[in-house]
Amino acid sequence: MSVAPDAARPLTGVRIVEISSFVAVPLAGMTLGQLGAEVVRVDPIGGAADYHRWPLTGDGESIYWAGLNKGKRSVAADFRSPEGQDLVQRLISDSGVLITNVAGRQWHSYDTLTRLRPDLIHVEVSGRADGGTGVDYTVNAGIGFPMVTGPAEFAKPVNHVLPAWDVACGIYAALAVVTALRHRDATGRGQRINIPLENVALATAGNLSFFAEVMVNGTARERIGNSVYGQYGQDFTSSDGVSFMIVALTGRHFRDLTELTATTKAVAALADTLGADFTDEGERYRHRDALGGLFTEWFTQHTGDEIAAGLSATSVLWERYRTFADVVTEGRLSANPMFTPLDQPRIGQYLAPGLPLEIAGAYPPAVAAPALGDDTAAVLGEWLGMTSDEVGRLTESGTVA
Amino acid sequence: MSVAPDAARPLTGVRIVEISSFVAVPLAGMTLGQLGAEVVRVDPIGGAADYHRWPLTGDGESIYWAGLNKGKRSVAADFRSPEGQDLVQRLISDSGVLITNVAGRQWHSYDTLTRLRPDLIHVEVSGRADGGTGVDYTVNAGIGFPMVTGPAEFAKPVNHVLPAWDVACGIYAALAVVTALRHRDATGRGQRINIPLENVALATAGNLSFFAEVMVNGTARERIGNSVYGQYGQDFTSSDGVSFMIVALTGRHFRDLTELTATTKAVAALADTLGADFTDEGERYRHRDALGGLFTEWFTQHTGDEIAAGLSATSVLWERYRTFADVVTEGRLSANPMFTPLDQPRIGQYLAPGLPLEIAGAYPPAVAAPALGDDTAAVLGEWLGMTSDEVGRLTESGTVA
Repeated sequence: MSVAPDAARPLTGVRIVEISSFVAVPLAGMTLGQLGAEVVRVDPIGGAADYHRWPLTGDGESIYWAGLNKGKRSVAADFRSPEGQDLVQRLISDSGVLITNVAGRQWHSYDTLTRLRPDLIHVEVSGRADGGTGVDYTVNAGIGFPMVTGPAEFAKPVNHVLPAWDVACGIYAALAVVTALRHRDATGRGQRINIPLENVALATAGNLSFFAEVMVNGTARERIGNSVYGQYGQDFTSSDGVSFMIVALTGRHFRDLTELTATTKAVAALADTLGADFTDEGERYRHRDALGGLFTEWFTQHTGDEIAAGLSATSVLWERYRTFADVVTEGRLSANPMFTPLDQPRIGQYLAPGLPLEIAGAYPPAVAAPALGDDTAAVLGEWLGMTSDEVGRLTESGTVA
Repeated sequence: MSVAPDAARPLTGVRIVEISSFVAVPLAGMTLGQLGAEVVRVDPIGGAADYHRWPLTGDGESIYWAGLNKGKRSVAADFRSPEGQDLVQRLISDSGVLITNVAGRQWHSYDTLTRLRPDLIHVEVSGRADGGTGVDYTVNAGIGFPMVTGPAEFAKPVNHVLPAWDVACGIYAALAVVTALRHRDATGRGQRINIPLENVALATAGNLSFFAEVMVNGTARERIGNSVYGQYGQDFTSSDGVSFMIVALTGRHFRDLTELTATTKAVAALADTLGADFTDEGERYRHRDALGGLFTEWFTQHTGDEIAAGLSATSVLWERYRTFADVVTEGRLSANPMFTPLDQPRIGQYLAPGLPLEIAGAYPPAVAAPALGDDTAAVLGEWLGMTSDEVGRLTESGTVA
């Protein structure tokens, strides 16, 4: 693979220290690395709480950890000893940027570190704005989505499987770093940024009106299964058991859907009967069950292949439901230029995603993740000018590994 | 409210034109505006496809649109006439930054616009990398999550209600803009960035190992209800019907959970019987059903209030499941400094979220959304130096509104 041009690695020359675990901050660090920054994840000797997280290979290596720490360098140090803390502080001072979700540690707090590096950029992800703890699955439980997810007749909460808040929080953290870098370039001043995971979730739910409709209209979103709220969107299943998601946002999408399913006359008759105007997206949503009843017949009378061929010839937005295994076995990753073969030590070779931003025509590609401590000696040498003898003494004393 | 200090509005002085609809790009523009940029959303006269999206007020005003366009300025122009297109091109040239999800329009393509503004930053969100269309709900169907969401015994797909891919894509787009701004500051060169929504989803699923475990282990994630994969995490319901999400990531969390539920001896006996080592997170996950059986008894014998009090005294990560209405009525928004009262014209007064980044001790607060075309005359005057007579003629000819 050719080296990406500079334009596609705009953060070249930026150094970042990451003290992290799990998803949000590792994703932030990986993203910044994919944009060209040199990101050193510093972990306690033995690894942080995520170093053995599932899924594992047959040999017990964490596929998960490799996935979220691609392209970083790894330093392992004794976080409990003054010598280890001092060393990590020196790395942070050298780099000028710390991203962390390990909150409340005095030795790498903003106040402590800005005495060593006044223009430090310090981005900390915490649980809740009130200082409480929280992880994606508890935050999600507390704000409302699980109570409206799943079949309409279901009464219990349904968690998401995607840790959506962690993912959003990680990208916000990367945004915070780059924004602060630009601000520092212009003013010479650092930044202190705190991102409570719960606030990412609350802001998002708020931006999407889930709270405003309670406050303004006195109504709250109901559980509507796989329907898309306020639009016509619904899932259907073929005669051979293949499920499809169908979305008709515009009048054209909707007309195409009625033509494909040979329901144009029946839909017009339904509109007459109900006094409904199906050129209005809200009316299509209100009467979705009646419309779905008309469309279902066509779907149940055709195979998945026939349905896919029919939909392909229309403007309707649609997709076949796939399992993760389907995505792989159908070759959808190998056909996508964002995925490249990655030879990941300890794990094996597989197709790994780069950054989902195509910059100047190319996706910054995946680079293998290190093993814990792979770069300890190199980083101490390059960043702090330590000799191999000095690193050797630190290793012997158990300060680094 | 006092004006936020400059440090908290780091993009002050940056102008951005947004041509958009729905979630991702509007969220990107709003985020950049909350960071201090002057964001002008330019829409066709009458509004884009999202201008009447649900939820609506009793008067038919879109609460949704107001939520995702807070703090922007609005210009309405005739996108079909050469005069309207020329005017929008001049605004883009002046600002130097375009964000859009309206792909494939020659008149605001990268090639056309860089002839007018060579150092343009052009960020386009599209559906799929192969040029196909896609929206959050179809993209999500195609990559695997709906097939593993919901109760273990359920066989059908379960869509997410949160448009998680749109949200992630929007924050990536904001990141792309700020990264490109910093790059342009340093090099004088613009950037062309394309973000296919499907690639945001595929990269995220890939980063989180959902595909790698298929390729490396030949296994795919199963539907496990509300359990957290690879950890001990589960929902429980109290004697009075209150549901809780419980997560025990560490040994300490888990010991605290067994002590609270008076199951420490029973859990030790279970470990003996099964030959399991519950200091290993994987073992806690493997035997989650047996462990859940032990814990359930305590939950079903206590009220929600008793459970909340008990959990509060431990290190266990937990949250009570809430509806969106619960979040509002319990006062959780008014207690959160990220939410401030917003007097939103056409909608009413409600608590609106600011940016979920606490910068220098404060959250950039919510600012009201415009109505369509509110700022047409002002922006044409300030950005392009037009007189009110010139704007009047453009209005009369139907070029702007």
